[in-house]
Amino acid sequence: MPDLYDVAAIGNAIVDVIAPASDSFLADNRLDKGAMMLVDQAQSAALYAKMAAGVETSGGSAANSIAGLASFGGKGAFMGKVADDWLGEVFRHDMAAIGARFDNAPLLAGPGTAISMINVTPDAQRTMCTFLGASVEFTDADVDKDVIEAAKIVYLEGYLFDAEAARRAFAKAAALAHGSERMIALTLSDGFVVERHRAALMGFIEGQVDLLFANDTEICALFETTDFDTAVEALRPHVKLAAVTRGAAGSVILSQGERLTVRAEPVEKVVDTTGAGDQYAAGFMFGLSRGRPLQQCGQLASLAAAEVISHYGPRPQVSLKDLAAAKGY
Amino acid sequence: MPDLYDVAAIGNAIVDVIAPASDSFLADNRLDKGAMMLVDQAQSAALYAKMAAGVETSGGSAANSIAGLASFGGKGAFMGKVADDWLGEVFRHDMAAIGARFDNAPLLAGPGTAISMINVTPDAQRTMCTFLGASVEFTDADVDKDVIEAAKIVYLEGYLFDAEAARRAFAKAAALAHGSERMIALTLSDGFVVERHRAALMGFIEGQVDLLFANDTEICALFETTDFDTAVEALRPHVKLAAVTRGAAGSVILSQGERLTVRAEPVEKVVDTTGAGDQYAAGFMFGLSRGRPLQQCGQLASLAAAEVISHYGPRPQVSLKDLAAAKGY
Repeated sequence: MPDLYDVAAIGNAIVDVIAPASDSFLADNRLDKGAMMLVDQAQSAALYAKMAAGVETSGGSAANSIAGLASFGGKGAFMGKVADDWLGEVFRHDMAAIGARFDNAPLLAGPGTAISMINVTPDAQRTMCTFLGASVEFTDADVDKDVIEAAKIVYLEGYLFDAEAARRAFAKAAALAHGSERMIALTLSDGFVVERHRAALMGFIEGQVDLLFANDTEICALFETTDFDTAVEALRPHVKLAAVTRGAAGSVILSQGERLTVRAEPVEKVVDTTGAGDQYAAGFMFGLSRGRPLQQCGQLASLAAAEVISHYGPRPQVSLKDLAAAKGY
Repeated sequence: MPDLYDVAAIGNAIVDVIAPASDSFLADNRLDKGAMMLVDQAQSAALYAKMAAGVETSGGSAANSIAGLASFGGKGAFMGKVADDWLGEVFRHDMAAIGARFDNAPLLAGPGTAISMINVTPDAQRTMCTFLGASVEFTDADVDKDVIEAAKIVYLEGYLFDAEAARRAFAKAAALAHGSERMIALTLSDGFVVERHRAALMGFIEGQVDLLFANDTEICALFETTDFDTAVEALRPHVKLAAVTRGAAGSVILSQGERLTVRAEPVEKVVDTTGAGDQYAAGFMFGLSRGRPLQQCGQLASLAAAEVISHYGPRPQVSLKDLAAAKGY
């Protein structure tokens, strides 16, 4: 198959509702700062009623990465499940508008398109409560063989480990990808996801994953430690290639036993950290798919993360291609 | 009646879809830069399909002003019509979240909640295509006597002159307001609105309006001139109080024959002019309702306009109360 796509991603198709919140709002509603919590439809409605006025925008972790990839000039495809409703149309529109392929049929009966209520505190931390709705109905039947086999990197969103049908879809995607010598990338997504599915994730990483993305919290959760370096060293023998982020402290790339350090790109004022990890992955995979050295992949990743945390919303607001060109990356 | 509200507004209840656009996009789609065009459902769908990826956020001119008023610490009420759909829920939620009263029943059958597609060009100009949907079904039955009689200022959105039923609602609101010695304010909203309804608007201004808001384009359209000063002088005998804005050149306040000039608040980088006039009106009415001198009303108005044009979206993203305090206004 020809390389039609730099990255094909499978993830939750979500529309975000983003609003400012105080620390006491988080406390009053028993929300753990910085985490992603799953809520049901009733909890979702109750929390929405209490949230501040905000904005709605297409989100979803892997989908955000595809948007970042497109902003770098990369070609992306996305697989995920929306409902046949207005939010689903917004999600679909935004994928089409960035030039990414997305043609999974909408869910015709059942819950609505997934929404994630993102409360952003003054310290720029985002606390997410997600009602997965239709997105959790993604199954292996939605994995498009032609897309997988035409993508240099197949990127899987760890959040989908919460849905059994989606885990089967991951297995199918991995089998198809490796059958045509494509690379499988996985992001761990969230510390609680790791705690819920530690063994399954570890098995999948060892058996299927060629490129792992994680942040400090997730990697510590995976190896049940509180020490970053301990976790990184524990990870080293299990991965061919990994990029582990740690906020303002930059990131660490592990490659065939080698360990590289990448500095975070400086940001004047951090407004909203939503999408930082997603954009890091976007930049890294864009670089990798274009054959750039790993250090430069890390720089592109840091650049994209810095852009997205300097404003509200999980997707780039300026051309990452232009930003990278200006930096000489 | 006690003064429960600083401002009660009647306007179109709209959710905005905001996306960046190029000048050639406007040309290709025959859109007049800076204007508001009405589109039907089919045109709306066709344009949306071509637009870039964007964000959705509660809008509507008068509703934006109520949001600005709330941000200053004022108490607002809003009357308008949404449908019984997700967008209507977003609009209602955002009003509740800012502490503004909004309890018109949704339209149960008929078109969906109004959306305005706002294409923002690199020069920060916004070009709007609005499908009025349910908002145009607002009638005099939706005018709440108790709210009108409890508001210091009743603020009417000129855009509603496009709907005959809404014009009847304006007449009812004006009669109720004047019957309990409340002030009627009107914004002209848009140059094309003025051209479509020049005589009716002029009659309403002379007979009912105590405070008029307009920008340079609208006031020139009203008096069929291209010269700002000619238009302002032509307006002078027709109004008790008026505030006329002219972008970076500041604004002019006319009061009982007196003419004051207010400077625009400097802005580092203008990102999106959506909502500038709405926030100007918010600041002005907040000042007026709190008994501030007219010059200071103009400064509060300019401050609110400056905040909103420094980011995407038509409503303030920081506390205007804090901003005003920092400036000593």
